[in-house]
Amino acid sequence: MSSARLQFWFEFASTYSYPAAMRIEALARDAGVGIDWEPFLLGPIFQGQGWNDSPFNLYPAKGHYMWRDLQRVCERHGLPFRRPAIFPQRSLLAARTACVAKGESWMPDFVRAIYRANFAEGADISSPETVAACLRSARQDPDGWLARAQAPEHKSLLREQTDRAVALGIFGAPSFISGEELFWGHDRIEEALAWHRERP
Amino acid sequence: MSSARLQFWFEFASTYSYPAAMRIEALARDAGVGIDWEPFLLGPIFQGQGWNDSPFNLYPAKGHYMWRDLQRVCERHGLPFRRPAIFPQRSLLAARTACVAKGESWMPDFVRAIYRANFAEGADISSPETVAACLRSARQDPDGWLARAQAPEHKSLLREQTDRAVALGIFGAPSFISGEELFWGHDRIEEALAWHRERP
Repeated sequence: MSSARLQFWFEFASTYSYPAAMRIEALARDAGVGIDWEPFLLGPIFQGQGWNDSPFNLYPAKGHYMWRDLQRVCERHGLPFRRPAIFPQRSLLAARTACVAKGESWMPDFVRAIYRANFAEGADISSPETVAACLRSARQDPDGWLARAQAPEHKSLLREQTDRAVALGIFGAPSFISGEELFWGHDRIEEALAWHRERP
Repeated sequence: MSSARLQFWFEFASTYSYPAAMRIEALARDAGVGIDWEPFLLGPIFQGQGWNDSPFNLYPAKGHYMWRDLQRVCERHGLPFRRPAIFPQRSLLAARTACVAKGESWMPDFVRAIYRANFAEGADISSPETVAACLRSARQDPDGWLARAQAPEHKSLLREQTDRAVALGIFGAPSFISGEELFWGHDRIEEALAWHRERP
């Protein structure tokens, strides 16, 4: 029995976080690793680098590549994909909701529902209606959790998560942390999950 | 018998191009794919994006991660690695030499020698002495090839290569092109080599 854990840092607006969120649970089970689901915001980190938009918008060649590559990744893993009309979407409410749901057994279901809404269903994930629908799909009472997410005493949770991400050296999403080791990008899931086995 | 070919676009200053250059020939042989070695310069492309330095220097968190990650990648693949004192190194002379050597059977040996000089041996790859030593290690007469590389009528070759890279949508290195498909990053070699098989 392994007690290894991997931190999975995700941003709901981040394109490559989508396949990571959809795939990580099954991969982690096979690897015998527990996942800590860690929501955060990339916006403040990008602003700290002088970017007022996603680098995929600021650098068109990079963005053009990313959309085609994401489509290939989703095809490869059998994930539905529809390019969102708006990118990046405002992920504040969904991320605040994920913060108050941290540690709840249904939190991964909620996270996956938001990602599907964003990258497969063309929904506006900044709207309370979409977040409520995703809470319902995780069999939760939307009103209670939405109120908790937006309560003044809970709004700081997301800021603290984002500060933690910066302190951990995170600069993009998805990111994975195994012990002291940081891995960046969906294509590093397997390597991150294997790290603790290779270095006991 | 397959006649599939993969374009391998590399920049001698690019960190992740190093493991790609060292690994691609054996992987391509196993995959039954021929490699077209395509040198280019990232500097003009980065300048077009408003960067006057490597993004790994401009964005320190990203740079910190990259050096640790490159070390892991090299360990994983059994490649020697020593972080260069200067990064990025000036790759102009080495890239011009690779341009005049395109199509020569010894060109991959020369390319690997330059990458070893940069990322394993702490050598200054901008110096004619280093480039000459790399030509000699590929069993070539350095003086002849260095003269050819710097001849006015050949200097445009590298500019044309870099223009081609931009026209192909390339924005970083290493990049791989299979048919119309662009793949970016050392961790996509296997996927790029497999592309033509999966989509005949």
